[in-house]
Amino acid sequence: MFSKDIYVSRRQQLQGTVKSGILLFPGNGNVGMNCRDNWFHFRQDSTFLYYTGINQPDLYFLIDIDNDKEILFGNDLTPEDMVWVGAADPLQVFADKAGIQEVRPLKELASYLKTASGKGQKVHYLPPYRAQTTVEISEMLDIPTQEVANQKSVDFIKAVVAQRSYKSDIELSEITKAVDITADMHIHAIKNVKVGRTEKEIAAELEAIASSKGSSISFPIILTKDGQYLHNHATSAVLNEGDLVLVDCGAETLMNYAGDMTRTMPAGERFTDLQKEVYNIVLDAHESSIAALKPGVLFKDVHELAASRLVEGLKGMGLMKGNTEDAVQAGAHTLFFQCGLGHMMGMDVHDMENLGEEYVGYTETLKKNPAFGFRSLRLGRALEERFVITVEPGLYFNPFLIDKWKAEGKYTDFVNYDAVEKFKTFGGIRVEEDLLITKDGSQILGKPVAKTVADVEELKNS
Amino acid sequence: MFSKDIYVSRRQQLQGTVKSGILLFPGNGNVGMNCRDNWFHFRQDSTFLYYTGINQPDLYFLIDIDNDKEILFGNDLTPEDMVWVGAADPLQVFADKAGIQEVRPLKELASYLKTASGKGQKVHYLPPYRAQTTVEISEMLDIPTQEVANQKSVDFIKAVVAQRSYKSDIELSEITKAVDITADMHIHAIKNVKVGRTEKEIAAELEAIASSKGSSISFPIILTKDGQYLHNHATSAVLNEGDLVLVDCGAETLMNYAGDMTRTMPAGERFTDLQKEVYNIVLDAHESSIAALKPGVLFKDVHELAASRLVEGLKGMGLMKGNTEDAVQAGAHTLFFQCGLGHMMGMDVHDMENLGEEYVGYTETLKKNPAFGFRSLRLGRALEERFVITVEPGLYFNPFLIDKWKAEGKYTDFVNYDAVEKFKTFGGIRVEEDLLITKDGSQILGKPVAKTVADVEELKNS
Repeated sequence: MFSKDIYVSRRQQLQGTVKSGILLFPGNGNVGMNCRDNWFHFRQDSTFLYYTGINQPDLYFLIDIDNDKEILFGNDLTPEDMVWVGAADPLQVFADKAGIQEVRPLKELASYLKTASGKGQKVHYLPPYRAQTTVEISEMLDIPTQEVANQKSVDFIKAVVAQRSYKSDIELSEITKAVDITADMHIHAIKNVKVGRTEKEIAAELEAIASSKGSSISFPIILTKDGQYLHNHATSAVLNEGDLVLVDCGAETLMNYAGDMTRTMPAGERFTDLQKEVYNIVLDAHESSIAALKPGVLFKDVHELAASRLVEGLKGMGLMKGNTEDAVQAGAHTLFFQCGLGHMMGMDVHDMENLGEEYVGYTETLKKNPAFGFRSLRLGRALEERFVITVEPGLYFNPFLIDKWKAEGKYTDFVNYDAVEKFKTFGGIRVEEDLLITKDGSQILGKPVAKTVADVEELKNS
Repeated sequence: MFSKDIYVSRRQQLQGTVKSGILLFPGNGNVGMNCRDNWFHFRQDSTFLYYTGINQPDLYFLIDIDNDKEILFGNDLTPEDMVWVGAADPLQVFADKAGIQEVRPLKELASYLKTASGKGQKVHYLPPYRAQTTVEISEMLDIPTQEVANQKSVDFIKAVVAQRSYKSDIELSEITKAVDITADMHIHAIKNVKVGRTEKEIAAELEAIASSKGSSISFPIILTKDGQYLHNHATSAVLNEGDLVLVDCGAETLMNYAGDMTRTMPAGERFTDLQKEVYNIVLDAHESSIAALKPGVLFKDVHELAASRLVEGLKGMGLMKGNTEDAVQAGAHTLFFQCGLGHMMGMDVHDMENLGEEYVGYTETLKKNPAFGFRSLRLGRALEERFVITVEPGLYFNPFLIDKWKAEGKYTDFVNYDAVEKFKTFGGIRVEEDLLITKDGSQILGKPVAKTVADVEELKNS
C-alpha cells in the first residue's frame, strides 16, 4: 500500500466531485474455475485498490457523503479459517492503513444501503464486470439483474476517470516497475523463441517471469506465429524456420500496475528480406506516432497518422495505391490494421476499460467513429500530461478478411488485391511501447528492449 | 476429444437414469479479471466436458429427454470475430464430433426452456458455482438468484455422480498423463527448492511446467515454508536454512484431467533429525493408508487409520499420550491433522466438488461427521473399483490452534502441551499420491517421485 495520506486525499477529491449520495465500491471475490473453491488467482478491483489500497477479497467499501462516513464492510478470519490460510491481520489494521475509520461485518451492508435508500439517498455504483457483483447489487438494492448495468452512476464514473487518468509520481514509479518486468519478459522471448519450440512453452516461461518478479501477467499472453489474428493466444504449435513470432505480453506489479509491450521476431536466426521490409514499415509508423505525442494532440489524429505511414509503406511495396489520406479516411488501411493505435494504461492494462470507453477515451464532443477499425480505437481524446498510454501500430495479413473484401470488391481503388494475395500466409507484425505524456512530448517507460531489425537479430543471436 | 461413441453412450446412460424432463448443461464462459474482457484462462465446466467433450466458451447443451432431442446452443464466430481470435470451426463441427444432431443460436435457448416449462416439463440443472451461470438460470427460468442453488436437481446430481465416479481406461490414461506432468513439477521442485530463493519464483517455474506440458495447473500451487497452514500459497518469502518446504501442486492435461501430489523437503541440503522424525511419522501414516485401500473399505475408516498412525508416532515423540483409539475418536489428533485424508480426483482435482460432498463422498446412510477435522474429510464412503483418489496425511503445527486449545484446556488427556510448545515454529509436512482403486487393492498412478527422506535428499543433491 501507498501511504495513508494518498488514499485519504484521493477520496476527499472524489467526494468533492460527486457531492452527494453513497459511493459504493464492491471489492472482488475469488472466482471458482471448475468448482466454487478452486480459484483463479485473486485480482482485486482496480478502483477499489485506487481508493483504499486494500488487496483482500470479499470486502465492500462505501463513502456516505451525506453523513460524512467511510465504512469498510467485511469479515475477519476466524481461528478455523487460519487453519487453512494462515495468520491475517484484522480488517481494522487494513482500514487504519487506508485512513478508514470504521469496519463493520459484511452482513450489515445490505441493511445500511436499504436504510439509506429508504431515506432517499442515491447509491452510486460503477458498472460491474463480474457477475458476482451484479448478483450482489441486484439483491442488495433490489434491482433486477438485467437492470444493474443500466443503473450505473455516470457521475461516479466521470469522477473516477477524472482522477485515475492522471498518474502521480508514485504511480509512475510502479508502472515503470511493471514495464521493467515486461521488458525482461520480452528480452527472454527474443532470446528463447527458437525453431522447434512450442508457443506454449515459451509463453509459460514469460508468465513465470511475471509471477516471480511481480504479481502475475497483466493480460493473457499473446505469443503466436499467427500474429495476423490480433488476440491469438499461445498454442501447442511448433515454431518453424521462416515463422514470424508476435509476442504481446505484460506483467503486473504486486500493487497491480500493468505493463504491456509487443515485439515481433523471427523463429529462426534472421528476418527474411520481405519480413524486414514489412517490419520497417511498422517501425516507421511506431516512431512517427511517438514523435507526434504531446499534450493537446488528439490521439485519434495520431492513430490516423500511423495509418497514413502504414499506407505509405504498403504503397511502396505495391500492396496499396491511390492518395494516402483518401485511403485512410475511407478506411482502406483497416484491411491491414484492424485495431486501434493504443490505449490508456495504469492499474488495468486497458486502463478503466470497465468504466466505459465513451468516458475514458472519448468526450462529450468527441465520440468514437463506429466504422470498422476505427471502432476498435479505445482512445481518441486529446492527450494530457501524466496520461500513460501505449503506442502499438501493426500490419496484419488476415486471409479471411482479404478473401472476403476481395470478393466484395471493397476498397479496390486503394488495394492491389493481386499483390496482397501472396501475403495471406505472411502473419502479423506489431511493435508496442508504454509511454508517459510529458509537458512537451512523451517518454518511453521502462528499460529499453531491442526494437530495430538489427537489434532484435543481435539480441536473438547473442 | 475422445471418440464420438464415448460421449453418445455417456449421454444415453444419463438419460436412462434421470428418465424425464430436460437436462440443462451450462458451459462456462470467460471471466474478467479486472475488466469484462481481460480474462482469466478459460476453464470449461467438467460435466459439460464429460458429456460433450466440447472445450469452447459460451455454450449451453441440453437433452430434452421427453422429446428425444439433443441441442447445442451457441453462436458461430463472425469474420469480424476472427480478426481477433483467428479461424474457428463452426459449432456444427464440434457437435458432430460429440454426436449431437442439432445446433441452434444461443438466443433461442431461453424461449426453448420457457416453452418446455410451460408444457410442464421439468428443467434439471446442477448447482451452479459461477455467478454468471446463476444469473443466466435466474433470468431464463425466472427463479430469483437467491433461489437458484436451492432448486438444483438432486436426481441429475446423483446420476452424474454415478457415472463420473468410475474412471474408464481412457480416462485413466488421461489422469496418468496429468500425474506424470505433476511428477515432473515435483521433481523440479525437489531439485530447485534452495536456500535464498523465494517461494514465488519456484512456484512460477512449476506453473510453467504445467502450462507448457498440459493446459494449466489443476489448482493454485501451494509452495510454502509455512506448511502448517493447509492452503497457504506461495509468497515473496525467501527460503532459509532449516526451513521445511511443503509443495502441493498438480497439472491439468489438455483434456482437463487433474493430477495432485504433495512432497515436503528441506530448503537446505538435508532434513534435520527432528524433521526426519516427524516426516517418517507422516510417511508411515501414508504407507499404512495405502496398504488399507481396497473395494468395500470405508475411506472414513482409512482416514481414522491414518489418524491412529499419526497419534502413535506423536506418542513416540512425547507430544501425545493416552489410548490411541480413544484419542482419535475424541478428535485429539485434529490439533495436528486438521483436514481429510484425501478426496476423489478426475476432471476436477476435488472431483465433482461442485455437485456436493454429500452426494460424491457420502451416501444416504453414511453422513459426514460434522466435528472439527472430520468435517473436512470430503470422502467417507466405501471405495469401489475405478475410483481415483488421493491419500495425503500430514502433520501441521499451527501455532494459533495450539495456543487456543491449550488455553481452553482442550484434549489435555491426550496432548502434552508443554512438549508441543517447541513445535510452534516447526511448520507442516504432507505426503500425497494419486491412486486408482483396483479389484484387490490400489495402484499409485504416474511416474514415481522421491518420497523417503533418503530419496528426497538424494534427488535434491543430485
